[in-house]
Amino acid sequence: MRETMSIQSPKSSASLLVVSAHAGDFVWRAGGAIALAAERGEKATVVCLSYGERGESARAWREGKSLTEIKEMRRTEAENAAKALGAEITFLDAGDYPLQETPELVDRLVRVYRDVNPTVVLTHTQADPYNGDHPAAARMALQARVLAQAIGYDAPGEPLGAPPVFSFEPHQPEMCEFHPDVLLDITPVFARKRAAMECLPAQQHMWDYYTDLATRRGVQLKRNAGPNLGLPHTTMGEAYMRLYPQVTGALA
Amino acid sequence: MRETMSIQSPKSSASLLVVSAHAGDFVWRAGGAIALAAERGEKATVVCLSYGERGESARAWREGKSLTEIKEMRRTEAENAAKALGAEITFLDAGDYPLQETPELVDRLVRVYRDVNPTVVLTHTQADPYNGDHPAAARMALQARVLAQAIGYDAPGEPLGAPPVFSFEPHQPEMCEFHPDVLLDITPVFARKRAAMECLPAQQHMWDYYTDLATRRGVQLKRNAGPNLGLPHTTMGEAYMRLYPQVTGALA
Amino acid sequence: MRETMSIQSPKSSASLLVVSAHAGDFVWRAGGAIALAAERGEKATVVCLSYGERGESARAWREGKSLTEIKEMRRTEAENAAKALGAEITFLDAGDYPLQETPELVDRLVRVYRDVNPTVVLTHTQADPYNGDHPAAARMALQARVLAQAIGYDAPGEPLGAPPVFSFEPHQPEMCEFHPDVLLDITPVFARKRAAMECLPAQQHMWDYYTDLATRRGVQLKRNAGPNLGLPHTTMGEAYMRLYPQVTGALA
Amino acid sequence: MRETMSIQSPKSSASLLVVSAHAGDFVWRAGGAIALAAERGEKATVVCLSYGERGESARAWREGKSLTEIKEMRRTEAENAAKALGAEITFLDAGDYPLQETPELVDRLVRVYRDVNPTVVLTHTQADPYNGDHPAAARMALQARVLAQAIGYDAPGEPLGAPPVFSFEPHQPEMCEFHPDVLLDITPVFARKRAAMECLPAQQHMWDYYTDLATRRGVQLKRNAGPNLGLPHTTMGEAYMRLYPQVTGALA
Amino acid sequence: MRETMSIQSPKSSASLLVVSAHAGDFVWRAGGAIALAAERGEKATVVCLSYGERGESARAWREGKSLTEIKEMRRTEAENAAKALGAEITFLDAGDYPLQETPELVDRLVRVYRDVNPTVVLTHTQADPYNGDHPAAARMALQARVLAQAIGYDAPGEPLGAPPVFSFEPHQPEMCEFHPDVLLDITPVFARKRAAMECLPAQQHMWDYYTDLATRRGVQLKRNAGPNLGLPHTTMGEAYMRLYPQVTGALA
Amino acid sequence: MRETMSIQSPKSSASLLVVSAHAGDFVWRAGGAIALAAERGEKATVVCLSYGERGESARAWREGKSLTEIKEMRRTEAENAAKALGAEITFLDAGDYPLQETPELVDRLVRVYRDVNPTVVLTHTQADPYNGDHPAAARMALQARVLAQAIGYDAPGEPLGAPPVFSFEPHQPEMCEFHPDVLLDITPVFARKRAAMECLPAQQHMWDYYTDLATRRGVQLKRNAGPNLGLPHTTMGEAYMRLYPQVTGALA
Repeated sequence: MRETMSIQSPKSSASLLVVSAHAGDFVWRAGGAIALAAERGEKATVVCLSYGERGESARAWREGKSLTEIKEMRRTEAENAAKALGAEITFLDAGDYPLQETPELVDRLVRVYRDVNPTVVLTHTQADPYNGDHPAAARMALQARVLAQAIGYDAPGEPLGAPPVFSFEPHQPEMCEFHPDVLLDITPVFARKRAAMECLPAQQHMWDYYTDLATRRGVQLKRNAGPNLGLPHTTMGEAYMRLYPQVTGALA
Repeated sequence: MRETMSIQSPKSSASLLVVSAHAGDFVWRAGGAIALAAERGEKATVVCLSYGERGESARAWREGKSLTEIKEMRRTEAENAAKALGAEITFLDAGDYPLQETPELVDRLVRVYRDVNPTVVLTHTQADPYNGDHPAAARMALQARVLAQAIGYDAPGEPLGAPPVFSFEPHQPEMCEFHPDVLLDITPVFARKRAAMECLPAQQHMWDYYTDLATRRGVQLKRNAGPNLGLPHTTMGEAYMRLYPQVTGALA
Repeated sequence: MRETMSIQSPKSSASLLVVSAHAGDFVWRAGGAIALAAERGEKATVVCLSYGERGESARAWREGKSLTEIKEMRRTEAENAAKALGAEITFLDAGDYPLQETPELVDRLVRVYRDVNPTVVLTHTQADPYNGDHPAAARMALQARVLAQAIGYDAPGEPLGAPPVFSFEPHQPEMCEFHPDVLLDITPVFARKRAAMECLPAQQHMWDYYTDLATRRGVQLKRNAGPNLGLPHTTMGEAYMRLYPQVTGALA
Repeated sequence: MRETMSIQSPKSSASLLVVSAHAGDFVWRAGGAIALAAERGEKATVVCLSYGERGESARAWREGKSLTEIKEMRRTEAENAAKALGAEITFLDAGDYPLQETPELVDRLVRVYRDVNPTVVLTHTQADPYNGDHPAAARMALQARVLAQAIGYDAPGEPLGAPPVFSFEPHQPEMCEFHPDVLLDITPVFARKRAAMECLPAQQHMWDYYTDLATRRGVQLKRNAGPNLGLPHTTMGEAYMRLYPQVTGALA
Repeated sequence: MRETMSIQSPKSSASLLVVSAHAGDFVWRAGGAIALAAERGEKATVVCLSYGERGESARAWREGKSLTEIKEMRRTEAENAAKALGAEITFLDAGDYPLQETPELVDRLVRVYRDVNPTVVLTHTQADPYNGDHPAAARMALQARVLAQAIGYDAPGEPLGAPPVFSFEPHQPEMCEFHPDVLLDITPVFARKRAAMECLPAQQHMWDYYTDLATRRGVQLKRNAGPNLGLPHTTMGEAYMRLYPQVTGALA
Repeated sequence: MRETMSIQSPKSSASLLVVSAHAGDFVWRAGGAIALAAERGEKATVVCLSYGERGESARAWREGKSLTEIKEMRRTEAENAAKALGAEITFLDAGDYPLQETPELVDRLVRVYRDVNPTVVLTHTQADPYNGDHPAAARMALQARVLAQAIGYDAPGEPLGAPPVFSFEPHQPEMCEFHPDVLLDITPVFARKRAAMECLPAQQHMWDYYTDLATRRGVQLKRNAGPNLGLPHTTMGEAYMRLYPQVTGALA
């Protein structure tokens, strides 16, 4: 069982890659998973395909800011949030609303995969009727992962393995075909997630919204873990959906 | 993270419960998981709701055996197979073809749950158009698990926690709404599974059929694990479907 | 290819069994298939689990008829309709609204299967939010078919083979998870179906409704067959849903 | 029934078209159906959109072969396999990993449809999380089929009829929303399929894998056909998914 | 359009029926809808099939209360909550954990329907892997509604019309196949819902949980209504799933 | 309740937008909804992405008409039909068979949204295996609606609100994942819909087909409304599928 047990426990070579359509998404939806990875001493990398400059910056537009100012502001905020979580962050500046799917952008993602060599990948759901950029990002993240696995694909680096992929939770999960396959206990790092959220002042109403969600998922986590594990009353959770079968050496 | 890591690693109090409609099902479909648990020193318990005396003993009926003889034969074979896997086995002798769902039988299962106190539960899929006893067993196994959780349910023992439940693989998975959420590496115990299968001589054609299936699931397991883990060419697998969200402290 | 081609072409031993919740259902929903079988010289048998005396005889109740009168009237009408289609008909008189699922009624159906030895089975959909008797009939028809296959099931006759099962079209197909997998060309026998419908005078408004439906399914049949087959403008159709994989020697 | 029976039985004008993303796919997944069509004296045409030069030639890349050499090698192998099955083969050389969906490539496929005038079409599933080229090929095959039906589409030849379309079986069927709607008896031509597989020496481990799959699908075929048909113990099968309703003159 | 507009606007004869498995469910899940109906001067009736005495009274059992005491306590609390919402309440005392589905209990529900003559019906979801009593209650509520529509069903009163049915939101919606088809604005009556919740002191942790949920559904309601409607920041919502097509005279 | 009741009743600012792949679609599938809106004094706008010149004008092509003639003819017919319904109509002339999805065409639709400021949107289903232009139109209509909501999207006019979107009924609903969530009573305007259909002489066989469909949906509408509403025997209906949750102040 040695070789499969190693799948479960964090390896020193563990590397988390988060593919985010806009600056900000990774904080609300995956901040806990990122902070947990960082806490374990693993490498965590966030790739923002765009700054969310058009679709997710309504207040700044209403205040009359320019496109350049908005992108700069969003970049700075996202860098601060990534730092608070313990992650590196890269911006591809591919534009949003709409985020166009192009072979070139997919190729850039392939190169990210080859470079980062992730052991776990997080991205958006493949459906989201409220925001077309989210599924576009997910489709490209998934396509690039498969391409990066091929030795014949012309990009630097070694062929990628088969890192598991998880969808993080969208804003209206039931409308996005999101089923919480995995409930992640983020209690130990929730303070860091909250701190990262507070790096995004323009969306202050989201701080409580996603704190409440973490509480709600925490309640469900305790319900599914059972009383016998003695999880604390204040358990906080994040929900994920697993896209490929889990590979394991022991059912649990 | 201490409290949730303990979910993943086998605890000394770990206890596996397999609810099987007929004697035999647990061998073909979950023999690897049972042997792995036994190998880890955990308790493994199989409950057979019936002997499969009417629906799964065609050869014996053609040979003119009596009902009593058939039940006795099936019981002995199942006991031998359980022994080969390292499991205890109990027979409720509730009759098959059809296996009738009754409050009394559910109550007996509640008492089994309270007694065995499982940390993992395995049973049939909830759909199977080829064999109505399988979903009947699954429905009762699931109902009894929920009832056993209630302190107000009148049965001896402590209320059950919330053990995860997995469906094991049916004969024609695509017809039974079976999706392989979990691929279990049974390589280290495959020889024991094969030995247990060989305790069922009346179904000799199944020995190779389920060996081939284990090979096939093993190929998929390696494909999903990725080449980097270096799993051996001879990896053998069993597929499972997870019925409740996985609770974990780390995505992997 | 010889042994499998025989699956496709009507054998002299071909036998059609229709399991209908109420007297009447088989006419509207499967009259074409029944008449086609009869026309080919095959045996066609209709089993009505009830007369539909409570749930489908509103007019008679409003006219003040007694339960006995209504059952008698429905029986006579259904016998006439079956005769018009060329089928034998049996009534189990199990009561409707609700049609109760009982082991005894399933056992009676097993005996019907063993006796009729069908090569094709037709019944209701497994979902129908407008009429619970329909799925109840379907569940019993499906369960009895599986039980009848077991040599160990204690009923007279030989074990059943594996006749394909089709759901016929419910009144509101989209609400009943009905997908038209098979479009049956009933043009050659539509006049017989119409004549059978006219044996049910209390539901005269249905005559045109189901004639229109046959036209509609006929249009779709031509659309799916393609213009090259030269089906006539007046093609009439019935839609069916296939519950088990089709077994064939040639894709078509 | 005359006009519809002709749908079922092979016509002299029968023509099978297989749209394959890569050279090789058609052998593993549809070799039996192709050989059966050839055996019946029908025309069988395989269109390979790419050679699979980047995504499915890992060994050649590891051996240091050039792109040109790999394409040549794959082409030769595929030609040999097609010959073994009795099919003609065409290569569109559109590139793989990724296979890009373009209007031009769809237009080329429309012209193939108009030229080949297929009466049956086989292609990939519309989902495949392990290989994006497969659904891309399926989407283009389906779109081109519809376009070829329009008299107003500007391409040589007569408008296409409405040939039925089947998805052939992907490598991990449950992950690709593949449901085996049709089980095809390939026993009479399995030796030819095996011979065709052996034309692909680089993927020798697949020979046994797909032989085992044919055995497995054969077991299920016998199970669904029922014991009464007396299919031999060595029945071999291929599974298909039907994308449009079956049009027929008789339920079977 | 006169006749259909009346469907939309509350009629003086409007009557809301809520079928609840346990005392308590109707408060958390449908308290807003009940209070809105009462506020509009409509009749609102809650039917509790059981008191939830075994499955939802863990604290009382741990405190050593007797079954009789627990039922009495639950009854009083539920009566207080119903009063706070403005609804009448009836208890069928059919027992819980498990709530057994019987023809007799369904018949009692038919009589409730005939008596209350509801124009809107609310009940549980048809799936709930955490609590089998909930789907059992839903199945009986749905079956009884159909039976009550039949003039031939032997129970006092006039045949029921076709009142729309809504599932209210379960505890873990994504696990119960719950899709929020309808978002109900309960802002005007939220204070009454909160007051009703506070009538259930044993489940104090639920007060905030369901207040948070109302906030969350309110945020989604505003999102789906659009900014132009000017809904207040404090909008509170309840989510429902519609089981039959909406009938209307105007799309909105 | 004031603010939400206004959602239900037609406001003077109400504006209906119909996005149609081809000239003609809006008549068969949404003519009743359009006429109802016009009758209520609301603005109704139809946008035809193409004339359906290649894919839906078979007769004209067979008669040897030129592309220019066909487009002109289709335009005139569609203008007449729109006039008969009381709607304005715009043609984007983007070409059909295939209707190509491009950023430019989506941008043109965004500008239509900003200009028309719809309060209700109707378009095709997102699946249609018989006509790829239909889902392409739907995807673009949905994407443009989301883009038009963003203040940062660079197009004239105010950001759009969140108008509800409905799919109208495709030709073969069960094949297009169409579920009739809403049954619209079009009785008062059916004569106008028929008159509009008769503006399309090339498709005369469709006049009766869609009249029959309206009758059929009318029967279902009465069935779902219940007998108590006293809808006339001649009720005519159109079916729609709702893509976002309904927002309301009262369940009905």
